[in-house]
Amino acid sequence: MQFVRFLSSDGPRYALVEGTEARELDGDPFSGCRPAVRRHQIQDLKILPPCSPSKILALALNYPEHASEVKQENPEEPQVFFKPPSSIIAPGEDIILPSISTRVGYEAELAVIIKDATRGVPPEKAMEHVLGYTCVNDVSARDFQRKDRHWWRAKGFDTFCPLGPYITTDVDPHNLKLELYLNGQVRQSCNTGEMLFKIPHIIAFLSRAMTLLPGDIICTGTCAGTGALAPGDEVEVRLEKVGSLRNRCRAEG
Amino acid sequence: MQFVRFLSSDGPRYALVEGTEARELDGDPFSGCRPAVRRHQIQDLKILPPCSPSKILALALNYPEHASEVKQENPEEPQVFFKPPSSIIAPGEDIILPSISTRVGYEAELAVIIKDATRGVPPEKAMEHVLGYTCVNDVSARDFQRKDRHWWRAKGFDTFCPLGPYITTDVDPHNLKLELYLNGQVRQSCNTGEMLFKIPHIIAFLSRAMTLLPGDIICTGTCAGTGALAPGDEVEVRLEKVGSLRNRCRAEG
Repeated sequence: MQFVRFLSSDGPRYALVEGTEARELDGDPFSGCRPAVRRHQIQDLKILPPCSPSKILALALNYPEHASEVKQENPEEPQVFFKPPSSIIAPGEDIILPSISTRVGYEAELAVIIKDATRGVPPEKAMEHVLGYTCVNDVSARDFQRKDRHWWRAKGFDTFCPLGPYITTDVDPHNLKLELYLNGQVRQSCNTGEMLFKIPHIIAFLSRAMTLLPGDIICTGTCAGTGALAPGDEVEVRLEKVGSLRNRCRAEG
Repeated sequence: MQFVRFLSSDGPRYALVEGTEARELDGDPFSGCRPAVRRHQIQDLKILPPCSPSKILALALNYPEHASEVKQENPEEPQVFFKPPSSIIAPGEDIILPSISTRVGYEAELAVIIKDATRGVPPEKAMEHVLGYTCVNDVSARDFQRKDRHWWRAKGFDTFCPLGPYITTDVDPHNLKLELYLNGQVRQSCNTGEMLFKIPHIIAFLSRAMTLLPGDIICTGTCAGTGALAPGDEVEVRLEKVGSLRNRCRAEG
């Protein structure tokens, strides 16, 4: 199944994706929903980010080839940082390249969307708390990533978290082709099976420290091929069976 | 003025603090409110954290004496990290000392509560976006703070952000006595005027990178005298004119 979240006349609503159509849902996929009567052409909808997380947890160095490319060892435990919810944008919205940064990069990733409150769960039960998956671009200011002790802004500028378009359920998240296209040319290409720490382990590890809440996002790390973005670039994260997330870049101001 | 947030029969509500009484408000202090009829004895209320932030931004090394104590230089720019909203607890709730950490510490701080959406504001206009101030205890797992590349769990375990009790408006936030009491004995004592980076500068700096939203929290750093917490300890942050935030510690499990 695929859920799409869109802006209706009474605020954000969820719908089921059925080909080129969206069938409205009463309720939401977290607390329960059932199909309503109204249908829309997806192309007519204002698509929103697929959820509204209370927190975004992200992994660094979770693909060995990317770790090599940035001359880092594979970590012994998941290396985790936060992105602020204020950095989220929807598919089709612009990534703003901050004038105070000289090098902003893309990172294609699979995002896990948490279904319900999750605390201290063992790996073998972790997947019961996953609603589904979507695409995320972990946009990063490389200069601040080096300069600052913490990555609060390197990973946290407004617009640095394009997310979507849909929530896809019922796929094996460790056997999907993950690609990034920059102006139509492939720059990253890997399979999510190459993740160093797999999703059940990540969820168990994170939920050992803190409660994951419905709609919380886990960005599972990027693979080799990272590079820089320039004004006018169109950047696309493509994740097999999950979707395509496209955004254009522009300079601030 | 002081606002208190409490759990009423129809969910969280705000009230004005008037001595030992709380006068209910229709609305909230962010989007607008006016006094309602009902009054309560504050001691009868279930006090909630004073707001529900979309993000918590926190400063490290913002008091020179504390920087000296931990053998660090004063930073050239505010050194910022995130705490997750899931770490917030109310006054009177227990701080849980995680079994996987061998050393958890307290940090008394003044917290700034943002009033409205704030982006790219200059220092001279920054204070217009402050609703008020409250107490925060930036509880920290020192072993993970050293061991992990990022402070996501060192500062982010559940219960690591006691916050409250009230939102205090109309005080000079740079001339307040800030103290921490551990089991009734003073351990930290300073004046908020000793902050290295002052609040207008901090807000301008943060909002240069990201939009601050109503209810967002800025923890402005702790002063000298940090130390460890043990099960059974009662820890109190006391901030002149703003309030007293008390929590007890217990071991996990």
